[in-house]
Amino acid sequence: MSDLESIGRDILQELEEAWNDASGERFGRPFSADAEFVDIRGEHHRGQDAIAGGHQGIFDTIYLGSRVRFQLLQARSLAETVALLHSTADLDVPSGPLAGTLRSIQSLVLRREEAGWKVASFHNTLRA
Amino acid sequence: MSDLESIGRDILQELEEAWNDASGERFGRPFSADAEFVDIRGEHHRGQDAIAGGHQGIFDTIYLGSRVRFQLLQARSLAETVALLHSTADLDVPSGPLAGTLRSIQSLVLRREEAGWKVASFHNTLRA
Repeated sequence: MSDLESIGRDILQELEEAWNDASGERFGRPFSADAEFVDIRGEHHRGQDAIAGGHQGIFDTIYLGSRVRFQLLQARSLAETVALLHSTADLDVPSGPLAGTLRSIQSLVLRREEAGWKVASFHNTLRA
Repeated sequence: MSDLESIGRDILQELEEAWNDASGERFGRPFSADAEFVDIRGEHHRGQDAIAGGHQGIFDTIYLGSRVRFQLLQARSLAETVALLHSTADLDVPSGPLAGTLRSIQSLVLRREEAGWKVASFHNTLRA
């Protein structure tokens, strides 16, 4: 496994555990302060705080009790301090309007900061 | 307008003109050889040739006669040779199962190569 794959898996695991513990604050931690997030509805969220708060909102409502599993597809370097990742997610939603399993694909752009590698961009799309 | 915004607008204009001329080959030109493309159905296409060929396929079928308008939302630098862009598109489809106007949002990662700035990653999601 390359270093980038290892870093990517660690970040996805952190996101997965935060999601499954329904913690928006922890979900936001791997993101950079100025990170951008495009969700499955095509909404564009800007900044770690907005990403954390927005996720807490869905953890407490439409995705209450849901569990996610991320899988890294690939990771590659675009520059010494920038990497491009693709991953998939299977999300089991127990009840509500989105009940069932939602399959999605993500692209993530990681940037190495002083505090380590952070997610600068996350873009999520449902898979048909 | 920043240099990156100008570069981003030029690339979006190239994509728009290629789409509106239904040329998959021209649509593929702004992409790097190893570019990755996630489409609105969550399918992951790899490489300029696959992106060009896949687009020619939809230009000739479900998107026959369609016209797109891209709009740059923002462009920012992630490294000296890497930039992150977000844009929206309005696609008018005259007929077929997708007839109507499809609104979408894109994230693009540009990487500066010897031949200039190229699209390394393109991810597209329909807006609700």
